[in-house]
Amino acid sequence: MIFKIPTQYFLVSGVSDGYTPLNAFDGALLQAGIGNTNIVKMSSIVPPHCKRIAPIPLPPGSLVPAAYAAITSDVPGEIISAGVAVALPEDENQNGLIMEYSAKGERLKIEETVRNMAIEGMKLRGWKIRDLQTVISEFQVKRVGATLAAVVLWGE
Amino acid sequence: MIFKIPTQYFLVSGVSDGYTPLNAFDGALLQAGIGNTNIVKMSSIVPPHCKRIAPIPLPPGSLVPAAYAAITSDVPGEIISAGVAVALPEDENQNGLIMEYSAKGERLKIEETVRNMAIEGMKLRGWKIRDLQTVISEFQVKRVGATLAAVVLWGE
Amino acid sequence: MIFKIPTQYFLVSGVSDGYTPLNAFDGALLQAGIGNTNIVKMSSIVPPHCKRIAPIPLPPGSLVPAAYAAITSDVPGEIISAGVAVALPEDENQNGLIMEYSAKGERLKIEETVRNMAIEGMKLRGWKIRDLQTVISEFQVKRVGATLAAVVLWGE
Repeated sequence: MIFKIPTQYFLVSGVSDGYTPLNAFDGALLQAGIGNTNIVKMSSIVPPHCKRIAPIPLPPGSLVPAAYAAITSDVPGEIISAGVAVALPEDENQNGLIMEYSAKGERLKIEETVRNMAIEGMKLRGWKIRDLQTVISEFQVKRVGATLAAVVLWGE
Repeated sequence: MIFKIPTQYFLVSGVSDGYTPLNAFDGALLQAGIGNTNIVKMSSIVPPHCKRIAPIPLPPGSLVPAAYAAITSDVPGEIISAGVAVALPEDENQNGLIMEYSAKGERLKIEETVRNMAIEGMKLRGWKIRDLQTVISEFQVKRVGATLAAVVLWGE
Repeated sequence: MIFKIPTQYFLVSGVSDGYTPLNAFDGALLQAGIGNTNIVKMSSIVPPHCKRIAPIPLPPGSLVPAAYAAITSDVPGEIISAGVAVALPEDENQNGLIMEYSAKGERLKIEETVRNMAIEGMKLRGWKIRDLQTVISEFQVKRVGATLAAVVLWGE
């Protein structure tokens, strides 16, 4: 194996306005508590026996695998939302599944979609769902806005 | 070095219809046998002396570096294809090169393009090609479809 | 921690024309000296006490975390530029921040934007800037062109 398998995960979200889309994204990462780390995007599994923990401060500059949804907009007044859903299987020897979704629109619409995505993903695997966790983040853009929801993988 | 250098690789592909583009992509990853891992996208080299193996089951939730082409479409009836080409050098102390290409259209067109991309890339390096490997994946969309071709790097 | 924290970084850039956008990008990576490695994109922090070094040759096929800006164009004659800015904090126990920006247009315009992005990012953190480093790469497209600027993280 090239990398260690993560043993912990947590859910975070953040929103921000900014000078550019990337600054807004940076602000959203900061609000989420992961703005001083190096996020490595990955698709999108919670390993078996990986434990959910409360968000913890991560060492600055560390490389952090995460699955996330994010969206930026430069349309003042526009509402944007990003969400992630984690579906955990009944059989704890199976892995969980993370789905990400972001779009214009309000929290409830995005939450419904991303929940259904996770439910469909588990149905495709033929696995029953023990728990379905979501975090959704909504933002009304002032000038250039970003909203982010993330599942951060970690391990001691 | 931050990460270990991969010592093995294999080629996979998959196609799927799905509830959303991400669900279709998830289905294509599952069909390719890597749907329960955390794919980390990278560009796009086979290390020297890295050995091709037959696809193997990977530990669920493991972080897996891969180079891949993927495309989704929500146009029923549309044909989409994704391909990867691996060009290996005559001099086994040099690295191989991976190229990825996806587009609307049929397998043969995508295969020709991605092969030529790999040939051009080796020409740019001034290296002769010992072997050129491709995997191409074609799909006719039912509702929302995805097709994927990937080179997975791995190591004991 | 899943990965080691990088202890060194360097700045590189490259430009290239190519057979396809991906070939042009590959050529730009080669000119930057990182074309035979596996770049893993991350966002975008220089760890505390991470030292800037002159670019070094990396082992072929190694997995290399990097933050980069890149842009391709298939409009002959068009000028494209990509830049990265690294803002380092006065307090050396804090991390530095990397910003990336690419667009149509000339070097100076891109440099001004990416510098301002890094300045805004440090302002958002409430940190004073000790040093601001940039690398910008401009290219006039012949057929299909790419330009790239990157911060490569590394460690012994």
